[in-house]
Amino acid sequence: MSVSEPLVVGVDFGTLSGRAVVVRVSDGAELGHATHAYAHGVLDQQLPDGTELGPDWALQVPDDYREVLRVAVPAALAAAGADPADVIAIGTDFTACTMVPTTADGTPLNELPEYAGEPHAFTKLWKHHAAQGQADRINELAAQRSEPWLARFGGLISSEWEFAKGLQVLEEAPAVYAAMDRFVEAADWIVWQLCGDYVRNACSAGYKGIYQDGTYPTRDFLAGLNPAFAGFVTDKLEQKIGRLGAPAGTLTAEAAAWTGLREGIVVAVGNVDAHVTAPVARATGPGRMVAIMGTSTCHILNAEVLREVPGMCGVVDGGITEGLWGYEAGQSGVGDIFDWFVRTSVPESYAAEARERGLDIHELLTEKAAAQPVGAHGLVALDWHSGNRSVLVDHELSGLLVGATLATRPEEVYRALIEATAFGTRRIVEAFRDSGVPVTDLVVAGGLVKNEMLMQIYADVLDLPLSTVVSKQGPALGSAAHAAVAAGCFEDIHAAAAVIGAIDEARFTPNPPDVAAYDALYAEYRELHDHFGQRDTAMHRLRRIRRAALAGGDR
Amino acid sequence: MSVSEPLVVGVDFGTLSGRAVVVRVSDGAELGHATHAYAHGVLDQQLPDGTELGPDWALQVPDDYREVLRVAVPAALAAAGADPADVIAIGTDFTACTMVPTTADGTPLNELPEYAGEPHAFTKLWKHHAAQGQADRINELAAQRSEPWLARFGGLISSEWEFAKGLQVLEEAPAVYAAMDRFVEAADWIVWQLCGDYVRNACSAGYKGIYQDGTYPTRDFLAGLNPAFAGFVTDKLEQKIGRLGAPAGTLTAEAAAWTGLREGIVVAVGNVDAHVTAPVARATGPGRMVAIMGTSTCHILNAEVLREVPGMCGVVDGGITEGLWGYEAGQSGVGDIFDWFVRTSVPESYAAEARERGLDIHELLTEKAAAQPVGAHGLVALDWHSGNRSVLVDHELSGLLVGATLATRPEEVYRALIEATAFGTRRIVEAFRDSGVPVTDLVVAGGLVKNEMLMQIYADVLDLPLSTVVSKQGPALGSAAHAAVAAGCFEDIHAAAAVIGAIDEARFTPNPPDVAAYDALYAEYRELHDHFGQRDTAMHRLRRIRRAALAGGDR
Repeated sequence: MSVSEPLVVGVDFGTLSGRAVVVRVSDGAELGHATHAYAHGVLDQQLPDGTELGPDWALQVPDDYREVLRVAVPAALAAAGADPADVIAIGTDFTACTMVPTTADGTPLNELPEYAGEPHAFTKLWKHHAAQGQADRINELAAQRSEPWLARFGGLISSEWEFAKGLQVLEEAPAVYAAMDRFVEAADWIVWQLCGDYVRNACSAGYKGIYQDGTYPTRDFLAGLNPAFAGFVTDKLEQKIGRLGAPAGTLTAEAAAWTGLREGIVVAVGNVDAHVTAPVARATGPGRMVAIMGTSTCHILNAEVLREVPGMCGVVDGGITEGLWGYEAGQSGVGDIFDWFVRTSVPESYAAEARERGLDIHELLTEKAAAQPVGAHGLVALDWHSGNRSVLVDHELSGLLVGATLATRPEEVYRALIEATAFGTRRIVEAFRDSGVPVTDLVVAGGLVKNEMLMQIYADVLDLPLSTVVSKQGPALGSAAHAAVAAGCFEDIHAAAAVIGAIDEARFTPNPPDVAAYDALYAEYRELHDHFGQRDTAMHRLRRIRRAALAGGDR
Repeated sequence: MSVSEPLVVGVDFGTLSGRAVVVRVSDGAELGHATHAYAHGVLDQQLPDGTELGPDWALQVPDDYREVLRVAVPAALAAAGADPADVIAIGTDFTACTMVPTTADGTPLNELPEYAGEPHAFTKLWKHHAAQGQADRINELAAQRSEPWLARFGGLISSEWEFAKGLQVLEEAPAVYAAMDRFVEAADWIVWQLCGDYVRNACSAGYKGIYQDGTYPTRDFLAGLNPAFAGFVTDKLEQKIGRLGAPAGTLTAEAAAWTGLREGIVVAVGNVDAHVTAPVARATGPGRMVAIMGTSTCHILNAEVLREVPGMCGVVDGGITEGLWGYEAGQSGVGDIFDWFVRTSVPESYAAEARERGLDIHELLTEKAAAQPVGAHGLVALDWHSGNRSVLVDHELSGLLVGATLATRPEEVYRALIEATAFGTRRIVEAFRDSGVPVTDLVVAGGLVKNEMLMQIYADVLDLPLSTVVSKQGPALGSAAHAAVAAGCFEDIHAAAAVIGAIDEARFTPNPPDVAAYDALYAEYRELHDHFGQRDTAMHRLRRIRRAALAGGDR
């Protein structure tokens, strides 16, 4: 069946919601979009049945992802006024590393009645940070054995990734581990749901699954971590790898019923939210860093050179664009930190003022903070409330605020937190440059783009021009572009990106006096960063004290 | 005129309000009391006419103090159902060092029309911290010249005290300095208002005015600070000294009209709020520390030995009790910090819950925080939001919070701030002990006594039994006791204290498991304290950056 005006659907699965967009292939026009929030959000206190979770846990319920297919895709089609019959392909992207433990047929273990109260049967969201102990052991053993893949990950494997999360399941819930036939990236699980076939995408396999130069960590290495872990790769992980932009299969009847799309249309190989965005951010060449700024920030960057960049998340050959080395780095808490602040630390009078003036609290704080000259709040913060992904790779770290006085106002702390995340990005950019990987400018996508004060702060702190992705649906649009490639509408993703996606070039440029002022504040950030970022600082000891106190039980 | 049942009135002038209490001399019964808040509170942003103040300023309006005489004293008499004719004496105490610049007849300069918009013409409250530069120079020169009095103040003169404040007036507003015939402790100014005579009380002269062994710092020393400052002592400060508990004079007709008391009754010499409390806290012997805990905390302690205690506020021979060395230390921000937190950092939902349940927000936060085991919040704070009085004597320091995560709740930060102030007290107790001045237990008075969680935290952190002053009007009661002595009802303050005032002995005792848990948290506090408390840390640089940014003007 051929259609006169072919459309594609892209679906971006974020931390709190999924977004679907309907795109016309011929000119890349976004005809409609829709968002659906996950009913269970992030489980970080307890399971739906009331089972308590420990500190630093972050779980999700996979059926919330299916619900995005059932609700947001039809809603986007309706918003587009599109005939579902015109849709020829669907592409998806996901947070990573987010891991679904499943049976052999892809059923999430938490959907089995016997596991409804078992935390390890649920999906471990990227920001599940309770496997730091396992990550530490992985890093120690890998360094000791000089594992060749370690340098590809900046010298440190994150507690967020597949091996730390898998080892935690084994060691804390061996029965769940035994019942878990597959440990699946959510990016691939959703594709499995759509087309009935399990294809592992090359991107998350390379970055999060330590799949480098065609191999995984060896059985011998895994046995060194724990003898029962020796078969982790062969038993739980290994699967055929799908190239980005390739078809994974075709839409099943069941998934067609969920989405309202035609059975049999092309389903693209899964992808990671940041990486899928690079083409629509016009960042397929070297030197241009793409930052997807939302709950967290992911940075991706192409380069012609292979370098060992301390603390980066990983480098994968063609991991972003064929023919270039694709680097990834990240900040595990960004928008999350601002949301936490708004939720916990803004007084009633501000909430009332925002309501009265029809602003949201972020807008109100931004307006109040924007009037101040750089440095006038006298504050510096460390942006580690959700740990540090790059360059320290340590999720035992925590937030810090220095400089508060009795005159400090909420908007000043809010601004200091925004600045801290900008300083965190600068630290990452410096790490790339110091290692010989050029960074010439930034293209930003994601929910935080709408905050112009924040964007200007980033331009000033980084002393770099900032372009922004025009679409508010950057990752979803990138998924749609990949769907179009998978459906054969374009020769490759470059050709697709020439039509789908656009950027507002150098929309924010550095303001020299503020660049200089931020240099002084960054020096303070850097000193605090290097002091508290060492191994075994107050932050680490406070985590241990906290865990011991909680283990002792409430009074 | 004799009265059948003599009464005395004590008035305590605090940071935000004044409290009057009516006491029966025969048995110390508190017959009634009343409080009156200062109409202008603390001026830290602008003058009443809108003139902007710089960072770290804190001013007051002296007529607010007179208003306490006009409102709170009659209200206390009414509450007591007392016949004003039965009142035979009035005693007062004040925050210190709080300085009123006046003409020769005691008129505050800010009451002259030409100075209504001149910040330096207003009263500099104890927590005016904008004279740190002057304090630094005083300390540098005193150390260089080996001034004999320096060791009596722990090696450092505070920016809060008379000389730093006076030098700031000279250097920033020479015309005001020239017009200022007298630079008067508010403790003595209020007595001047009551009896028409200026008598300088021995307590604030000794501790805040560097009056030691019968002399002030020399003309030569003062000229070394600034040639125009050479006459500061002789021209602005020097005045007859009144012994604590002695009469300063008798009530004027004008003050009688204000208060409703009889003209001609005895007015006691002024006193400092903390020191005046020692007798009613049963702390006239050595080793028992009295902590007056409110906006800030003042610690006073008698000892048989004269020792140089680094960072203490001062030691004065008989400064608290005749025949013993009276030591003073302090924390410049305590209740102030909790109030700042409640005002700026507690979300709407908490405010609503408190309202609904008829609690104030402090009570709600306390209830939520009390349920947690020690250390479960994973936080440590530094309590320097208003600088550090002891033992670092540095008002360029600021607050710090380490350990926040996305799971951190407001009550956890609140508790961490309370704990930080307890750690600050422990640091002071350790400084005394390390110098050979024994501290055996604590007696607490002031507004914070009512928070039982806070008191228990202090007992556990200090590993000391805590007694509390039974009266909620500790300082005012102490002032009443001094009034009774001044009127000749008792031979001395010891005799008066045997009748007026009582304590609840060892009301809070340390809980051994929590003592151990707090030892671990205190180690973290101490490391942060010693790191950030050095000279020229991030905190100092952030202050300079802030001042420079504000001086550059708003955008």
